[in-house]
Amino acid sequence: MNLNNLNPNVRNVEYAVRGEIAILAETLKDKLNKGENLPFNEITNINIGNPQQLKQKPITFFRQVSSLVENPDLLLDENREKVEALYPIDVIERAKKLVSSAGGSVGAYSHSMGIPYIRQQVAKFIEERDGYPADPEKIFLTAGASPAVQMILQCMIDKPNVGVMIPIPQYPLYTASLALFNSRAVPYYLNEEKAWGMDPNDLKEAIHKARQEGTDVRALVIINPGNPTGQCLSDENMKEIIEFCHRERLVLCADEVYQTNTYSEDLPFHSFKKILRSMGPDYEDFELFSFHSISKGVIGECGRRGGYVECVGIDPHIVEQMYKLASISLCPNVQGQIMVELMVNPPNPGEPSYDLYKKETDDIYHSLIRRSVKLYEAFNNLEGVTCSKAEGAMYLFPQIRLPARAIEAAKTAGKQPDAYYSLEMLKATGICVVPGSGFGQKDGTWHFRATFLPPEHTFDEFINLLKNFHEKFMDQHRD
Amino acid sequence: MNLNNLNPNVRNVEYAVRGEIAILAETLKDKLNKGENLPFNEITNINIGNPQQLKQKPITFFRQVSSLVENPDLLLDENREKVEALYPIDVIERAKKLVSSAGGSVGAYSHSMGIPYIRQQVAKFIEERDGYPADPEKIFLTAGASPAVQMILQCMIDKPNVGVMIPIPQYPLYTASLALFNSRAVPYYLNEEKAWGMDPNDLKEAIHKARQEGTDVRALVIINPGNPTGQCLSDENMKEIIEFCHRERLVLCADEVYQTNTYSEDLPFHSFKKILRSMGPDYEDFELFSFHSISKGVIGECGRRGGYVECVGIDPHIVEQMYKLASISLCPNVQGQIMVELMVNPPNPGEPSYDLYKKETDDIYHSLIRRSVKLYEAFNNLEGVTCSKAEGAMYLFPQIRLPARAIEAAKTAGKQPDAYYSLEMLKATGICVVPGSGFGQKDGTWHFRATFLPPEHTFDEFINLLKNFHEKFMDQHRD
Repeated sequence: MNLNNLNPNVRNVEYAVRGEIAILAETLKDKLNKGENLPFNEITNINIGNPQQLKQKPITFFRQVSSLVENPDLLLDENREKVEALYPIDVIERAKKLVSSAGGSVGAYSHSMGIPYIRQQVAKFIEERDGYPADPEKIFLTAGASPAVQMILQCMIDKPNVGVMIPIPQYPLYTASLALFNSRAVPYYLNEEKAWGMDPNDLKEAIHKARQEGTDVRALVIINPGNPTGQCLSDENMKEIIEFCHRERLVLCADEVYQTNTYSEDLPFHSFKKILRSMGPDYEDFELFSFHSISKGVIGECGRRGGYVECVGIDPHIVEQMYKLASISLCPNVQGQIMVELMVNPPNPGEPSYDLYKKETDDIYHSLIRRSVKLYEAFNNLEGVTCSKAEGAMYLFPQIRLPARAIEAAKTAGKQPDAYYSLEMLKATGICVVPGSGFGQKDGTWHFRATFLPPEHTFDEFINLLKNFHEKFMDQHRD
Repeated sequence: MNLNNLNPNVRNVEYAVRGEIAILAETLKDKLNKGENLPFNEITNINIGNPQQLKQKPITFFRQVSSLVENPDLLLDENREKVEALYPIDVIERAKKLVSSAGGSVGAYSHSMGIPYIRQQVAKFIEERDGYPADPEKIFLTAGASPAVQMILQCMIDKPNVGVMIPIPQYPLYTASLALFNSRAVPYYLNEEKAWGMDPNDLKEAIHKARQEGTDVRALVIINPGNPTGQCLSDENMKEIIEFCHRERLVLCADEVYQTNTYSEDLPFHSFKKILRSMGPDYEDFELFSFHSISKGVIGECGRRGGYVECVGIDPHIVEQMYKLASISLCPNVQGQIMVELMVNPPNPGEPSYDLYKKETDDIYHSLIRRSVKLYEAFNNLEGVTCSKAEGAMYLFPQIRLPARAIEAAKTAGKQPDAYYSLEMLKATGICVVPGSGFGQKDGTWHFRATFLPPEHTFDEFINLLKNFHEKFMDQHRD
């Protein structure tokens, strides 16, 4: 095997979130660990939404249950007293319930769609969230949202001229997967001037152009709240998107993994399922996939790999084919499934674990808001940088207006200007971001994505490093 | 989306291990749970290698560590006393080490190839097993062996006439994945008369025939110990296979997930890597992937999804491309990674957990041997049934010679004869097996796969059910 006979679709995949800059960050981290002298003392990974890597404490209730389900001996009556010294009663009861739902052991393969009891809990959560029924037999538990997205794209793409509409900027999972399955990304642009909102006319133009080019457009991906752009869609905007997809006979893929990361009271999260159902019987045949995950929110259990996709209005034969695909990989990991159950069914008021759960989640949530504002203000104070406020998600996506000499220097280095800027930033400060070119952006504009996830007490320091770097960079490359 | 515009490769996938019969078994289980009256009291799932579903107790040391890593509060000094009342010291130390190797939390995304420390432990394990060096940078931790196999096939297949040699009978992951990636399975037959051994002349014939048909044969899959056939290869046979692949310039994919499931003193497990390295410098450019998993052995942590693939002699550019693919899914689940570490680095003699670990693993191992022999004898006592002894793995693959009237009845029912037999068995006894047609078999022969994993004390009862069913079935269909 070599690059000449490698699957060309694999070769064509680009995935910048873990690309050159992230790899250099790893190398620099190794150097620091070995005691090498660098201009900074640590790597600040604001390139990736990985809260617990950045010291976000896991939610105690979730981890207590996860811990107990692993150790069946502790659930035996003979150990009850010792265990009660360490775990609240509701944790013990929940762990017993979950082990029993897994057929007696969390080490056994489960149903390929996920443990039926947990899918029932997910359906109940969706019903309570939206006010409309949900069917556990239409829910697949998955190892995070990414494999769910890939499974659906893989089913959808039956020839190379199939296209899927994706927002630009986008989370690169979508372009990477479309490249892997040898199909076409049909871009529609989010409007930076309108806080990364979406204009339905742009959708029309984009699909029109794609069809003229012979693309068989099948689906539209929307990320709400947005990644990397942080916007939250209004109900009105969501209706327009649904109407557009309905008119154009597109399947809607709603990436709703940031549904609890909303920071503006004017823009609370509503799911596409809820808006769809509110539009009445004309939309009964509408096809929607909605994705959720344990990696985001205030949970941040990324490494565990858990999530789900709900299939709404999807042909039962397609659901059956998805089940067949899922069964080749046997089952999603049970530890991820269990965290999905905990996410959709957290402690209730009055239960022993509730107060701590409430305090922990509130603290993280409010700190996220403070951190997002602080970083947003810092970016807007940099020369040539403008940045929209994060209405949701975990990221800011500032635009940097680079001097012509910087763009020239990037060209000489064989890099995109924003990649060049981001690399220089990493080398000078240890701060690792993802250049906008990894997500897509309007031609001639340059951005980068930064999470606001580092611990709150470190913000002043790394913002200061960033500010000094930026000033120096602009001075060095001034026209 | 509907069956007409579904990706035809998805439609063409067949995956019998979780096919019609397994689905009926689920339905019958639901009926039993609802109190319905059926001719049996429980479903005996001997269709799938899922030890803990069948009450195999997890290994205490493994689960204690898994439990502790989940609960960072228990690792704090202030809780030390309470925790020592429940966990041995070596468990506590190991948990601390693993949490630290995961960057402080098992909830964070790890490196996309897996936690570097754990890959180092895997390399050390391989070195000690084989006596030859292993490189942690050539090891990918994965969510079980299946996604590792799929990742490699996906890289390898660059056009539809690419073919991969697979044993028949085979584990259907291989045919399913080859269908999904739109390429050709090139079958070579294992020889039932020689206890499912392999004749290198058959390999030559198979590749010759495939090439004549225009197939560009790229790789050969071998499963050792065998699934579903249970054979263990001799060193001599392994050398012949390596020589064949070397001569024909094939990549060797060695599915070695059953490496600790060997039951014959004459046929101990040797890895293909070890045999390859023993063949000297002529074979330095040989390309080998070796797969391992936490799902099998005496561990049986299937639901956790953990495993690894070692890339031997693979072009570094290909390894880089695999890393890119792995990074789209971010990382293999950390809980699976941790179990891989425990598998390759179990307690040592003298450590507090050693005695219990040794007893538990020995007990399971010896019981597996007893159970395999018991089921083997039972099968060979059935009219028209012959069965090879399991030298390894977890399965028996008996051949059933069905009367012409049974074959006729199957035809009328629109089923393969072995599927018909297996369905009738399920309906009469609650025993769920997988028909041989799901694995492939010589034309005109019929088999089924059965695990010998149910609890030892249940063997007499289900063997008796099986015997009664078989006698009745043969009587009813006697020519």
